[in-house]
Amino acid sequence: MIEVGIVGGTGYTGAELLRLLSQHPEARVRLLTSRQEAGKRADALFPHLRGLCEDLTFSEPDVDALASCQAVFFATPHGTAMHMAGKLLERGVKVLDLSADFRLKDPGVFRQWYGVEHAAPKLLGEAVYGLPEVNREPLRRARLVACPGCYPTSVQLGFLPLLENGLARDGSLIADCKSGVSGAGRELKQGSLFSEAAESFKAYGVGAHRHHPEIEQGLKQVAGTPVAVTFVPHLVPMNRGIHATLYADLERDTDIQALYELRYSDEPFVDVLPAGSHPDTRSVRGANQCRIAVHRPGGGRRVVILVVIDNLVKGAAGQAVQCFNLMSGLPETDGLDATALWP
Amino acid sequence: MIEVGIVGGTGYTGAELLRLLSQHPEARVRLLTSRQEAGKRADALFPHLRGLCEDLTFSEPDVDALASCQAVFFATPHGTAMHMAGKLLERGVKVLDLSADFRLKDPGVFRQWYGVEHAAPKLLGEAVYGLPEVNREPLRRARLVACPGCYPTSVQLGFLPLLENGLARDGSLIADCKSGVSGAGRELKQGSLFSEAAESFKAYGVGAHRHHPEIEQGLKQVAGTPVAVTFVPHLVPMNRGIHATLYADLERDTDIQALYELRYSDEPFVDVLPAGSHPDTRSVRGANQCRIAVHRPGGGRRVVILVVIDNLVKGAAGQAVQCFNLMSGLPETDGLDATALWP
Amino acid sequence: MIEVGIVGGTGYTGAELLRLLSQHPEARVRLLTSRQEAGKRADALFPHLRGLCEDLTFSEPDVDALASCQAVFFATPHGTAMHMAGKLLERGVKVLDLSADFRLKDPGVFRQWYGVEHAAPKLLGEAVYGLPEVNREPLRRARLVACPGCYPTSVQLGFLPLLENGLARDGSLIADCKSGVSGAGRELKQGSLFSEAAESFKAYGVGAHRHHPEIEQGLKQVAGTPVAVTFVPHLVPMNRGIHATLYADLERDTDIQALYELRYSDEPFVDVLPAGSHPDTRSVRGANQCRIAVHRPGGGRRVVILVVIDNLVKGAAGQAVQCFNLMSGLPETDGLDATALWP
Amino acid sequence: MIEVGIVGGTGYTGAELLRLLSQHPEARVRLLTSRQEAGKRADALFPHLRGLCEDLTFSEPDVDALASCQAVFFATPHGTAMHMAGKLLERGVKVLDLSADFRLKDPGVFRQWYGVEHAAPKLLGEAVYGLPEVNREPLRRARLVACPGCYPTSVQLGFLPLLENGLARDGSLIADCKSGVSGAGRELKQGSLFSEAAESFKAYGVGAHRHHPEIEQGLKQVAGTPVAVTFVPHLVPMNRGIHATLYADLERDTDIQALYELRYSDEPFVDVLPAGSHPDTRSVRGANQCRIAVHRPGGGRRVVILVVIDNLVKGAAGQAVQCFNLMSGLPETDGLDATALWP
Repeated sequence: MIEVGIVGGTGYTGAELLRLLSQHPEARVRLLTSRQEAGKRADALFPHLRGLCEDLTFSEPDVDALASCQAVFFATPHGTAMHMAGKLLERGVKVLDLSADFRLKDPGVFRQWYGVEHAAPKLLGEAVYGLPEVNREPLRRARLVACPGCYPTSVQLGFLPLLENGLARDGSLIADCKSGVSGAGRELKQGSLFSEAAESFKAYGVGAHRHHPEIEQGLKQVAGTPVAVTFVPHLVPMNRGIHATLYADLERDTDIQALYELRYSDEPFVDVLPAGSHPDTRSVRGANQCRIAVHRPGGGRRVVILVVIDNLVKGAAGQAVQCFNLMSGLPETDGLDATALWP
Repeated sequence: MIEVGIVGGTGYTGAELLRLLSQHPEARVRLLTSRQEAGKRADALFPHLRGLCEDLTFSEPDVDALASCQAVFFATPHGTAMHMAGKLLERGVKVLDLSADFRLKDPGVFRQWYGVEHAAPKLLGEAVYGLPEVNREPLRRARLVACPGCYPTSVQLGFLPLLENGLARDGSLIADCKSGVSGAGRELKQGSLFSEAAESFKAYGVGAHRHHPEIEQGLKQVAGTPVAVTFVPHLVPMNRGIHATLYADLERDTDIQALYELRYSDEPFVDVLPAGSHPDTRSVRGANQCRIAVHRPGGGRRVVILVVIDNLVKGAAGQAVQCFNLMSGLPETDGLDATALWP
Repeated sequence: MIEVGIVGGTGYTGAELLRLLSQHPEARVRLLTSRQEAGKRADALFPHLRGLCEDLTFSEPDVDALASCQAVFFATPHGTAMHMAGKLLERGVKVLDLSADFRLKDPGVFRQWYGVEHAAPKLLGEAVYGLPEVNREPLRRARLVACPGCYPTSVQLGFLPLLENGLARDGSLIADCKSGVSGAGRELKQGSLFSEAAESFKAYGVGAHRHHPEIEQGLKQVAGTPVAVTFVPHLVPMNRGIHATLYADLERDTDIQALYELRYSDEPFVDVLPAGSHPDTRSVRGANQCRIAVHRPGGGRRVVILVVIDNLVKGAAGQAVQCFNLMSGLPETDGLDATALWP
Repeated sequence: MIEVGIVGGTGYTGAELLRLLSQHPEARVRLLTSRQEAGKRADALFPHLRGLCEDLTFSEPDVDALASCQAVFFATPHGTAMHMAGKLLERGVKVLDLSADFRLKDPGVFRQWYGVEHAAPKLLGEAVYGLPEVNREPLRRARLVACPGCYPTSVQLGFLPLLENGLARDGSLIADCKSGVSGAGRELKQGSLFSEAAESFKAYGVGAHRHHPEIEQGLKQVAGTPVAVTFVPHLVPMNRGIHATLYADLERDTDIQALYELRYSDEPFVDVLPAGSHPDTRSVRGANQCRIAVHRPGGGRRVVILVVIDNLVKGAAGQAVQCFNLMSGLPETDGLDATALWP
């Protein structure tokens, strides 16, 4: 068994890591840290895990203790992992950061969007962006992985086949994305209150969302050239799920259904639906799946790509476990075979 | 008091008409018809109206009886109003059709999208499209009004100022729309079950929604030239509300905030929010309001227009009452001053 | 017009007061206070009220300013009204407190449940408990009204006819109550987050809810003898609504349907449904109504009373306006004729 | 591998059986029947199962084909299993009926509540009621199992320790139960529409629910004497989950916390929470768990028992798999170790 630690395990992403790792055949959570909840049993905070993690108690985050793990997951807000990652790497611990700290390659861009100076800019070059469908081989050799944000995962998987093949007309990309409320985390924010979000729908952060530079950085990597995307996130009154509705104008006519099926034919966690489909987010609820449908309304040059993931699984904890499996030389699907919960 | 009838009053739109008209200072619902519920009291089906319509009992739809009303609203599925409207008009009754029967001007397009031959093609020319923000004067003189669909209302109000001024680049229009489940009506359809729609989100009918030709017909009228729109509707797990996220590329630089504020400055039911706003659907829940915010992310040529309405009010029954007021020479806001219910 | 003030108008109850008073024919909100939001326009916080309160700006709570109003509503957490009420009364201002400060007659009980010493125990005797169905005449003469809690309103209206007639067996009363999440207020509490409350259901505060002593005090008043109730509140994943399911064993056989119909026959806001009914909370959403159905399963001695109200209207702001009308010599229903929003 | 069949696999219970059995280490679904969907792939109806049941196609229900399975689950409405069970048993097939056909021991009571004559009254004696916590040993030897209803599972597990020990005062039992909407099945019923159930709460079937006689039959078995319960079901706007709030008056003082902990100490799927707890339904979402908390408000004789289960898992498909494991000599927890999905 590979012993792992989770730093900041009190939010939704931390809880989801616990759920997935408690059923992982080769991993065991040895340490779970939280400054605020230190001393409490994990299952006192998470009654849904009673019986599954009886030996786990929250402890203060401590590099020496964490160094006894073979891998450490950070499920913290941004600004924590960048202070601890270096010390853990030095002691031979693999690091998977689910926060934003190592996602952006340019420390200036990081400063601009997150408002703080990056504490470990030298590690930015080494950090591998944890999207296995793009970086599978580098992930096998990685010591430090920057797990993608939930929106960027859905948008990149949706645009990937077009951009890899130079098929999208410059300036035509739009990502109209919709997320369940758990995507906002467990912090106490007015907008996350039930009576603010239920029975309502809205856009937010038009032109000003931190996932925007991450999306454009990732698309540039696969396109080999800068890519501009109009990105509009929306809040859906549901717990889990992201639906990305993507628009692009084709540079030239092509069979996009065949293109997508081929591109993802060997991917264990990307499922291209039959032509004419409309995936719903519940079809991936709780599962590390991404389902994609492609459309060309009226047979024109504009394509509409529909992408669904569970923001807490393929958009966070599940993808982190997938990266962990690759880093650890395990089968990529270990611990990730749970079926979606429907309804 | 103006005496009115409602044909097909058992669905959500019919119930909403009853709610609004029961508080209208100048109108009285005299007749309420339903083949299926004939003989039952209205408030037996609608307990929320107990005390407000104690004299109302559902009756069989009958032209002679309806002819005793001064105006008749059709809240039926498509295919009913077109058989009865002519007879009522002959007898001097004003007709407001909330179904699709008189929306499309071309009977061939109607046949293509609704699968039946139009029964009253001669009336199509006379029918006034019930969007007061475009057709206020014709509505004052109208005998027959085709009330717009819920999606088309939101999309047209959102694109109107751009198209009236030739500001949108050809081929650039996208309408990514999201609707609450009441938009699907009260029919028994599997997709409308709670356990199918709750805690999930999906697109549907990409490239094949009946509101698409209605949208393009309406936009063509204001633009003076054919307009193509990519229209993608989605289902949101909430009862009421439509959020249209509209995209267009500007032909030339312009102050769109000022443009929208000016265009709607005298409109009683269209509210342009301050720059930087993100309207939520709950801000219009139960109210005959349309709220709009305009954005230009990054200051580029692509504009993002956010539009919210309540699909049952400004998207259906409220707009019908607004048209009724115009047709009847009443103040346009009569019976429509209810505030949104929040939360 | 009667000029009124609202202290603490940033929560759900304050917003609901604003909504109701903005449509009241005889009242005008002149002052709206909030320490935190002082200086901001009311409709900046509440976009759903845009166009209805353009002259209203939040100000610091100040007794001198408030004294210019004829009546002041407190929509504050407990502990505020008891410090200001006396000064306002001295200056001839009527006070309606929607918080808990004046509900409990015994300052010792107040201290026990709210953890602070009462600051104005001398006013407790004068304060009239604002349940018009019990205290209509005293309310007409009241200067200071303690508006009931949402649970206590539903439980008292449900048990009233039984207890007034000595029909309930001692020790048999149970109130199994269910509330929408807005009942918890707009404070930032983890349990009020969307992702904590949505798609889940739970009891809370069994044996330890602050509405318990208020319920037993109110029932004692109508029964003329101490009454014990087992009270179990639950949280429902919806915004608005309370459903109280009440159980009692009859002392003697009686026609409870007739009893309830008679008791409430003249009440404008209590509606006894036909025998066999099951009211749903949406039938009162946004309306100042209480709907009640009575059952005797199997025809035995145990009765089951089903009561629904909107916690923010008949359970808070609407009932306060009803009291205000009585205190002001206005028709009791002024400003309270809005129909429930359905669905 | 044990080969099993599912009759009527298109509803929520059938889908849940498929989900659970697709992850069962010792079972394989060989046949899946549906008159209506015969010929369609299972994953065309259930996209959430894509990749997991690629070989499964719905077929017409046929005894000969089903006889090739070692066990057959009926996930049909009542009235189907009673016609086919006998023939399957004759051919050596074990039968697990998730419908109501074999739950009630008295065919007269069955006729009274289900309105049809029982087609296989001779099998009623043999059928074992599938509540492992009561009937574990008989289940090991059973050929025919009547899986309990969802409400009866929660109510019986909650009252069991009291009734086994003669601790509940006669006539004092009340079961105030709340269910998510999936409990109503996937049939097209108006009350199951999203816009009827969302953002609302109601009781239904007071004094007239088919689970009532099943509950009283089960409680009588454990008490050894007839037991009367007042049973009031309610509908909660959520997909999954049952919360039973149970009331009883103690015959004599006792430590009920210790009593419950002891009674369920060896049960793999019943979890007694620490004193003072309030379980929420999400803590068992998707899991075959029952969580129970016991309270004595004010330390009096009235106890309040809070019970949560997932109606589709421990209340239906999961419990059926648990019974299947017992009947098949497998570890009772096989295929049932999935953690609850939270949030």
